[in-house]
Amino acid sequence: MPTINRQVVLARRPNGYPVPGDFRLEEAPLPAVGPGQFLLENHYVSLDAGFRNWMNEGSGDEVLPAMALDAPVMGLTLGRVAESRHPDYVVGEWLMARLCWEEYSVTDGGDFISRLPEPRDCPLSYYLGVLGDTGLSAYFGLLDIGRPAPGETVLVSAAAGAVGNVAGQLAKIHGARAVGIAGSPEKCVRLVDELGFDAAVNYREEGLQGAIAAACPDGVHVYFDSVGGPLLETVVDNLAVGARIALCGAITAYNATEPLPGPSNLFQLTARQALMQGFMTHLQEHRYPEARAALTGWLQSGELKNVEYRLHGMERVGEAFCDLFAGNNFGKTVVQLRDDGE
Amino acid sequence: MPTINRQVVLARRPNGYPVPGDFRLEEAPLPAVGPGQFLLENHYVSLDAGFRNWMNEGSGDEVLPAMALDAPVMGLTLGRVAESRHPDYVVGEWLMARLCWEEYSVTDGGDFISRLPEPRDCPLSYYLGVLGDTGLSAYFGLLDIGRPAPGETVLVSAAAGAVGNVAGQLAKIHGARAVGIAGSPEKCVRLVDELGFDAAVNYREEGLQGAIAAACPDGVHVYFDSVGGPLLETVVDNLAVGARIALCGAITAYNATEPLPGPSNLFQLTARQALMQGFMTHLQEHRYPEARAALTGWLQSGELKNVEYRLHGMERVGEAFCDLFAGNNFGKTVVQLRDDGE
Repeated sequence: MPTINRQVVLARRPNGYPVPGDFRLEEAPLPAVGPGQFLLENHYVSLDAGFRNWMNEGSGDEVLPAMALDAPVMGLTLGRVAESRHPDYVVGEWLMARLCWEEYSVTDGGDFISRLPEPRDCPLSYYLGVLGDTGLSAYFGLLDIGRPAPGETVLVSAAAGAVGNVAGQLAKIHGARAVGIAGSPEKCVRLVDELGFDAAVNYREEGLQGAIAAACPDGVHVYFDSVGGPLLETVVDNLAVGARIALCGAITAYNATEPLPGPSNLFQLTARQALMQGFMTHLQEHRYPEARAALTGWLQSGELKNVEYRLHGMERVGEAFCDLFAGNNFGKTVVQLRDDGE
Repeated sequence: MPTINRQVVLARRPNGYPVPGDFRLEEAPLPAVGPGQFLLENHYVSLDAGFRNWMNEGSGDEVLPAMALDAPVMGLTLGRVAESRHPDYVVGEWLMARLCWEEYSVTDGGDFISRLPEPRDCPLSYYLGVLGDTGLSAYFGLLDIGRPAPGETVLVSAAAGAVGNVAGQLAKIHGARAVGIAGSPEKCVRLVDELGFDAAVNYREEGLQGAIAAACPDGVHVYFDSVGGPLLETVVDNLAVGARIALCGAITAYNATEPLPGPSNLFQLTARQALMQGFMTHLQEHRYPEARAALTGWLQSGELKNVEYRLHGMERVGEAFCDLFAGNNFGKTVVQLRDDGE
């Protein structure tokens, strides 16, 4: 078994958007597997904007503790059980866990998230993306809260991201119009041409309010939001009567160096009888099989496409995380740690 | 028939909270009733904070137009049909309408809201309060959006107001704890002693966040909000997981002289999987009979109390409206225009 582990630690707390210098690659001895523990050989690290929140000082909450400085960065990994002294985990099985940015993890399974099905219908990395937390967030948020009806308009923020691209595609599958908001002309073109969005708006251009109104002439029936911030206020002014807003996250808030004011137009929620609801995907775990089966069906029929931004090697995990916020990714961001296998 | 009508007009647009000088009593000739019209002899004017919104320049929206200067102030009245050249309205019947602050109204019924049942189970003014728009707002907002369960804590802003006092009493009827927020120690005492609230908090005192947390030790499961503004942010920090916020209005926003920032902590809606939803009572008109029957039943059993702040005479309507915002009222504010009858 290996004796050295390569890990990426939090070198300092990001100030606003994270930069590669906030992270540091280190080597550490790999502890032996004790009773009730097992060794996970990590093959992929999943990069998720939500974890930015817990990099802040004092950010611990009911979900996760604040990350510690100089300790490996918390994140999702996908790995294979390589050694086990735990009765519930069998050598050779694949699973996802909320562990750290490291090549190997010795764990008692307390951070276990879910097993991959056997046999698998899709490549390994899909279980971190379209079939993983991000795809499942799109599925539950859009279908449980957004509830798009045929002919309605679904607006998606961070539409080129891991969650947003799936939310928009699911809106189309359910007969709605999908309009994406993204951060570059290239991403807007890809949303329409590759993923079938009806329109896409570049939030970095002037006249965003007018561009959204033009792309959503009947108003926004569903807003799938991972961003929050000033964009939410802009969208609230464009809501249709009876609109639903699914709050999937608040990238703006995670990076804020001081509290950001919320939308000044919340009265519009009353005037338009609109609903805004937050949700946490991991609380729907009992429904993952149902959701994965549906998503797999759409992948197999070609109605749903997997899009991925993949880097290689533990030394690039920090960079990949920063790319999420710099807008360099399109689709799900993963880092592949090993060349063997898929 | 009378030939002179006494009306209260909008003398100037309020700057912030309305003051009596914003309104002016006038006399105007009463027009004859033409074909397709009828004459309503108004007995009560209902004072409702929500109308403050449409006193602002450019405030017209899909619900109502902005009020015109020097024209009678829009509001709800309760009156008796005194003359009719309209086939649908019969002399002697009682109805509510979205008309103006005036002693008589000649109308084609375009502003008709609803007829009073015949025979009536309750005094006339109840149909403007606990059985009117304000009581019905409490009913639909609390039960459709709040959905309080036994043992949960329901927090109510503007709890001494026409809507809030009913929302809190309905929470108790449904087995929840009711905690009210009001603007004076006297109101807090009355909420607990007269209306059965479990606790009440004076928002004008120091340490509001701590007082709310102390009164809601398990968190706020339901927030029934007519106020918006900074108080909403304070409450969001105290939400229980899975909380529901019913947005019934935004008194703070109506009176704002510039746009107010919204809550800076909306991310908590995601972390706590909370829901925030606005609603408009008048869109539930098809359910008014069901709602009034339920409310009447609780009035008759004594579980629900009607509380009213009543002034007398058209010359006091402007004052009564201002009293809503100055916090001089407890319960539903009405002005009785005639001494005959109830």
